[in-house]
Amino acid sequence: MARKVNTINKLKVFALGGLNEIGKNITIFEYGQDILVVDSGIAFPADDMLGIDLVIPDFTYLVQNKERVRGVVLTHGHEDHIGSLPYMLRDVDCPIYATRLTMGLVEIKFKEHKLDKVKTNCVKPGESVKIGCFDVEFIAVTHSIADSVALAIKTPSSTIIHTGDFKIDHTPVSGQHIDLQRFAEIGKQGVDLLLMDSTNVEAPGFTMSERYVGVFFERIFEKYQENRIMVATFSSNIHRIQQVINCAVKHYRKVAVVGRSMVNTVKIAQELGYLTIPPRVLIEPSQISKYEDKQITIVTTGSQGEPMSALSRMAAGEHRQVAIRPGDAVVISASSIPGNERSVSRVIDELFKKGAHVMYDGQEDVHVSGHAKREELKIMHALIKPKYFMPVHGEYRHLKMAKELAIEMGVQKENCFVMQIGEVLEIATDGARQSGNVPSGHVFVDGSGVGDVGNIVLRDRKHLSQDGLIVAIVTYDSSTRQILAGPDLISRGFVYVRESEDLMCEAKEIVANVFNRCQETRKKSDWTSIKNDIKDELRSFVWQKTKRSPMILPVIVEV
Amino acid sequence: MARKVNTINKLKVFALGGLNEIGKNITIFEYGQDILVVDSGIAFPADDMLGIDLVIPDFTYLVQNKERVRGVVLTHGHEDHIGSLPYMLRDVDCPIYATRLTMGLVEIKFKEHKLDKVKTNCVKPGESVKIGCFDVEFIAVTHSIADSVALAIKTPSSTIIHTGDFKIDHTPVSGQHIDLQRFAEIGKQGVDLLLMDSTNVEAPGFTMSERYVGVFFERIFEKYQENRIMVATFSSNIHRIQQVINCAVKHYRKVAVVGRSMVNTVKIAQELGYLTIPPRVLIEPSQISKYEDKQITIVTTGSQGEPMSALSRMAAGEHRQVAIRPGDAVVISASSIPGNERSVSRVIDELFKKGAHVMYDGQEDVHVSGHAKREELKIMHALIKPKYFMPVHGEYRHLKMAKELAIEMGVQKENCFVMQIGEVLEIATDGARQSGNVPSGHVFVDGSGVGDVGNIVLRDRKHLSQDGLIVAIVTYDSSTRQILAGPDLISRGFVYVRESEDLMCEAKEIVANVFNRCQETRKKSDWTSIKNDIKDELRSFVWQKTKRSPMILPVIVEV
Repeated sequence: MARKVNTINKLKVFALGGLNEIGKNITIFEYGQDILVVDSGIAFPADDMLGIDLVIPDFTYLVQNKERVRGVVLTHGHEDHIGSLPYMLRDVDCPIYATRLTMGLVEIKFKEHKLDKVKTNCVKPGESVKIGCFDVEFIAVTHSIADSVALAIKTPSSTIIHTGDFKIDHTPVSGQHIDLQRFAEIGKQGVDLLLMDSTNVEAPGFTMSERYVGVFFERIFEKYQENRIMVATFSSNIHRIQQVINCAVKHYRKVAVVGRSMVNTVKIAQELGYLTIPPRVLIEPSQISKYEDKQITIVTTGSQGEPMSALSRMAAGEHRQVAIRPGDAVVISASSIPGNERSVSRVIDELFKKGAHVMYDGQEDVHVSGHAKREELKIMHALIKPKYFMPVHGEYRHLKMAKELAIEMGVQKENCFVMQIGEVLEIATDGARQSGNVPSGHVFVDGSGVGDVGNIVLRDRKHLSQDGLIVAIVTYDSSTRQILAGPDLISRGFVYVRESEDLMCEAKEIVANVFNRCQETRKKSDWTSIKNDIKDELRSFVWQKTKRSPMILPVIVEV
Repeated sequence: MARKVNTINKLKVFALGGLNEIGKNITIFEYGQDILVVDSGIAFPADDMLGIDLVIPDFTYLVQNKERVRGVVLTHGHEDHIGSLPYMLRDVDCPIYATRLTMGLVEIKFKEHKLDKVKTNCVKPGESVKIGCFDVEFIAVTHSIADSVALAIKTPSSTIIHTGDFKIDHTPVSGQHIDLQRFAEIGKQGVDLLLMDSTNVEAPGFTMSERYVGVFFERIFEKYQENRIMVATFSSNIHRIQQVINCAVKHYRKVAVVGRSMVNTVKIAQELGYLTIPPRVLIEPSQISKYEDKQITIVTTGSQGEPMSALSRMAAGEHRQVAIRPGDAVVISASSIPGNERSVSRVIDELFKKGAHVMYDGQEDVHVSGHAKREELKIMHALIKPKYFMPVHGEYRHLKMAKELAIEMGVQKENCFVMQIGEVLEIATDGARQSGNVPSGHVFVDGSGVGDVGNIVLRDRKHLSQDGLIVAIVTYDSSTRQILAGPDLISRGFVYVRESEDLMCEAKEIVANVFNRCQETRKKSDWTSIKNDIKDELRSFVWQKTKRSPMILPVIVEV
């Protein structure tokens, strides 16, 4: 393809958000007056983000340049790639491009967020669309959700490949193979920049095919012919669910789907033809008790040990429709996302206590990754042979290792760019360089509030969570300059008050003394400094007595 | 050995505390009028135990029977086996038996807790002591801390082996081998009950020797000859530290010890002869800058990513004496304890960002476990051939699997006892059975308070941590029945107040309305029900506006 050389226009590439995983949630391509957005996902809050529900990218840059945003392209339907789209669309009006299943999943979100005027464009792998000055071609890849695509993005002066999340699965459960030929063809024509999934760069070798888990399921269905079989997995892993259903059908079992997100995904995937379920196989959870154990398969959420998930509630005996019984065969078909290990372990223990046969990661072949390992990454390099390389989708160390791997595979060291969020990679005809920053970062979503919880609020929550609080209330008559009522102390999350009455009585005296002393020594009523004195003295008293530092809130009511 | 058969006395065995790991923290043996305690450790608080520092066993049973407690025997010096001893000794006065290093580590605790009258008895592996009616023999084992022992406990009617924590390391770094011959000899004479470490029962094969990590250290010292080398590990792993020191000496490097617990342990281990450090090898951290990089080795705490640990602070550039520099070779010589994965990952990323070469678990041979895997457990079974088996030291699923392994190894199924905390195993001449319960469980330590934080306090902390709180204060003149001041609202951890002024104004009106309405409709001032109404209406208003549920504290001051 002949290239129109444009010496004025430069390609800019940068990521806007993400917590640890750089470039995963949202990547921006900018050329001339046109902005193309790839994915718009969420991150899951870290342990210290108390009370936060979701973390979305900071969309400031897009909002500031909204008239130039030509469209959003989605690579696949996982939350970390589509979850923040409704928040972005509140302020930026632009068309969405995605494959059918991805679009189906996004449309559920649009409904929840009452976004009814979004311009959506369904595309198929192999197709190309023109979005502003960008020619975007969708290339089929394999991943842990159906209908995933990589992108070949052509600007007037350069060709970019963005792999999205991928693995090389030569025996996918659905018909869709990864289109290695097309990667090679574009690679042969010349690729300027490759952005590649680096999640699994630490792992040597190849990721096993999704079918490998199917073989394991077969063994389980053979082994536990008389027992109920239960499989917990990610609701988005439609191929995994299909394999469970295939086994169930083969063994003349019914399938009950449990857990809200699982029910939703199975419904949409079935409607769109991504799940093939023969008639009369699906039953409602309320019907389970009408069948014998050997006729039942349950597909459920909760593979991460989430306390409110169906599996956790079943294990705890708190689920309305299903309780774990001795003999149940339970497969937790997932690996624990870092941070969830303890919850998963707790659920496994509960299942053991209930007498279930439990199969889980590390013990059995219950799961394969959706991401390419080192040898697969090398194959992509060999097919594409990019001039510039920018690893994405991974924590910092993964990007660093992906850079080293790219150098091994022949990319020039100075042509590899490990970028942090907000850092701009600029590619012009005379070369590529890191060039400045755009506003970026993450925004907390708590309840219906977006961005109204920041670091001060989180710091207070952290403080409250550690030692609770004491509210000290003094009511003061400004005419007589006397304490009218109190001091009263109220505490929460600090100690059992009934067992600490002496402590609280002493604390009241301290507050009264500080108040009276301040009144005597100060001419004017300087409430701020009196409050600070109350805080300081109460804090040091409480620390000395209990070695705790509750938050102290002095309140002076003047009447 | 001839056995005195006693038909009246029975042996009772039970665990008092521990969070997930049953029988790890403390195990009780009771025979006739005598009670023997094995270990007295702590558990580390789970994620939902907000603000809790330590979890100790519920000592109620021991306190209630304190005149019968003949002694405490310690198997080794890890916190989960010795950490709660000072708390127990507050109420129970009895002698302590331990090997030298274990005693050295316990004595540091006694000093901190100002316990100066504890009767301590240092023992050597191979020795026996008489404690009440119990003959306790100390048998050398290998584990991730020096001077670990198993126990052979003889009562007038039975022989018990308690393995403590162990692995079978045939090439230990110190001279102390595991005394397999002695286990066999006692086994041959007849063992009634075996209590065995089941931590690693999920893992097939053998745990590698501690020397395996030494070989890795050798490679690192060869590879990074020009760089500073830093090793983070558990401060209690003296053999690991010895291996680092050996490498440092061989490569003419100095060693700086960083991190309070590391400094303490190295000091005590050196004093007691468990660490051999040639003169002029140790330097103070403040001296590091006086040497070239290639002359420096740093041994530090922080292998679990603890935010306040030396390694985390060095990685964040917040350590007073050491900052990570490009080229530093950093070995995190540990595996992540479940729950710490995210923190460890964060520290690794920080180190990468600073340009360090980082070696960590999963990537390199940085660590070996201290616990026996399946094949080692089988060897112990083959040597001991107990009549009864009670797995300890593991989560419930591990105990369950250890039971299955015991059955494979020839123990009768009905003679295997998977016990929960507080459940009593009773062994008499006519057989063994589960027999009742004793008071047990765990007690929270928060600051200097032991047991004064319970579930209500924790529930409040949890609530406060999620959405913060709103204090609503109304001052009321009981003579005029008018609001004198307020309503005033104070919030913390809820929203940025400056950005939510409208919300807070509306909320104040709601409080005033509720208050006035209640005043009108009720003859007497029923403060409790007025407060409840304020709570309910404010809660539903705030939920509707923000989808959050802060804690609401209504305060009515009557003057």
